Amino acid sequence: MKIRIYYDATDTGGIVYHTKYLEFCEQARSEIFFSNNIFFENEGYVVKNLEANFIKSAKLGNIIEVKTIIKEIKSASLNIVQQIYKEDTKIFETNIKLVYLKNGKISKIPQKHIKILNEYKN
Amino acid sequence: MKIRIYYDATDTGGIVYHTKYLEFCEQARSEIFFSNNIFFENEGYVVKNLEANFIKSAKLGNIIEVKTIIKEIKSASLNIVQQIYKEDTKIFETNIKLVYLKNGKISKIPQKHIKILNEYKN
Amino acid sequence: MKIRIYYDATDTGGIVYHTKYLEFCEQARSEIFFSNNIFFENEGYVVKNLEANFIKSAKLGNIIEVKTIIKEIKSASLNIVQQIYKEDTKIFETNIKLVYLKNGKISKIPQKHIKILNEYKN
Amino acid sequence: MKIRIYYDATDTGGIVYHTKYLEFCEQARSEIFFSNNIFFENEGYVVKNLEANFIKSAKLGNIIEVKTIIKEIKSASLNIVQQIYKEDTKIFETNIKLVYLKNGKISKIPQKHIKILNEYKN
Repeated sequence: MKIRIYYDATDTGGIVYHTKYLEFCEQARSEIFFSNNIFFENEGYVVKNLEANFIKSAKLGNIIEVKTIIKEIKSASLNIVQQIYKEDTKIFETNIKLVYLKNGKISKIPQKHIKILNEYKN
Repeated sequence: MKIRIYYDATDTGGIVYHTKYLEFCEQARSEIFFSNNIFFENEGYVVKNLEANFIKSAKLGNIIEVKTIIKEIKSASLNIVQQIYKEDTKIFETNIKLVYLKNGKISKIPQKHIKILNEYKN
Repeated sequence: MKIRIYYDATDTGGIVYHTKYLEFCEQARSEIFFSNNIFFENEGYVVKNLEANFIKSAKLGNIIEVKTIIKEIKSASLNIVQQIYKEDTKIFETNIKLVYLKNGKISKIPQKHIKILNEYKN
Repeated sequence: MKIRIYYDATDTGGIVYHTKYLEFCEQARSEIFFSNNIFFENEGYVVKNLEANFIKSAKLGNIIEVKTIIKEIKSASLNIVQQIYKEDTKIFETNIKLVYLKNGKISKIPQKHIKILNEYKN
């Protein structure tokens, strides 16, 4: 997924505000489902924990690309890696554990989701 | 209501991103209810239309103050004016028409709200 | 310009947070320049004033489209209309006056910009 | 530092959007300096890497509290822990490595900052 950096993602330091990289990663995760016509209602994946490395920075007008790699699909959770590139340079990487919730409770990931997620499996 | 300007409210132009002033105004409106222990659930006030004047700008570290004046309380809507000051200088002003929704439908503003809103009436 | 609605643009009311529509409009304005390889540095267009009508709402997963119409190009300012559509329905409209700043001062809009802006003129 | 949760921090899932906790932590870090009349210009602390645990969630109207503990002050970097509490319950924790930059280059943390940071040392 390619994302353009606009003013709202930058701060007075002249570069992208740090939490925006995580926001872009979330958008890329959601797009995996939305582009398959799955629009969450009373369900969804919440971040349980994450590690993030801020390697280099992006700025206004840059186009960045988010790559999503599913490392592990468990019964009710996912371990994923997401990397952000600016041209050929990796500028950000995060390891995230996501938990699947349905009606607010940890639940078994639906088979329909697993089929889609498998396409992003490494 | 006083608000400190942090990095997330600024952009690469070195000043506060323009929509943030409207966000601060919304926070001030919500605080009127929250500080009176009214926490909306399946109800709330939505912006129908607004006019905004961006007079001067604020920047990182500034403390600004939002003043809310209720101009008119109608059956299901409100006309309000909100002004943002940096010290004694008015930097932003907006006229907003808000509509009260309950369960997604335009509804009569509850008496309990009107009592609170009257304190901000000019 | 088409924009997908992700979680970050929504609020607990289940719809897009009102200032996000103005943020999407700013992204569409910036894209006019970025797509023409103009990346502002020490210059840019700031919002002087605006009027906005919130007609209908968008929600998670929706794809919306921002249309930008330049109404008037003056020496140092622009009057524009921006409309947001969800499929064929107009859900938001704003009239904005923008001022061109260079090194923090109101300046004459460069000829290179006017050539681009004229393509969006109505 | 106490922070009220307003609409802009929530998402359609009914709770605070995950990156907002990190944004609140950044605000608390900045406030340490701002409240001591240090307003960064051409300098600042950038996040190099972080780990975050999302334990419980906050929602509209909640008041949360960010606690900042400086674990280690190195020549040009800091290791810190930040915790967010909702009443007596810890809902979020992050370990962050910050690097001090001056004019875009990694630099020695000024003595004036160290004096302030020491008050948050554990």
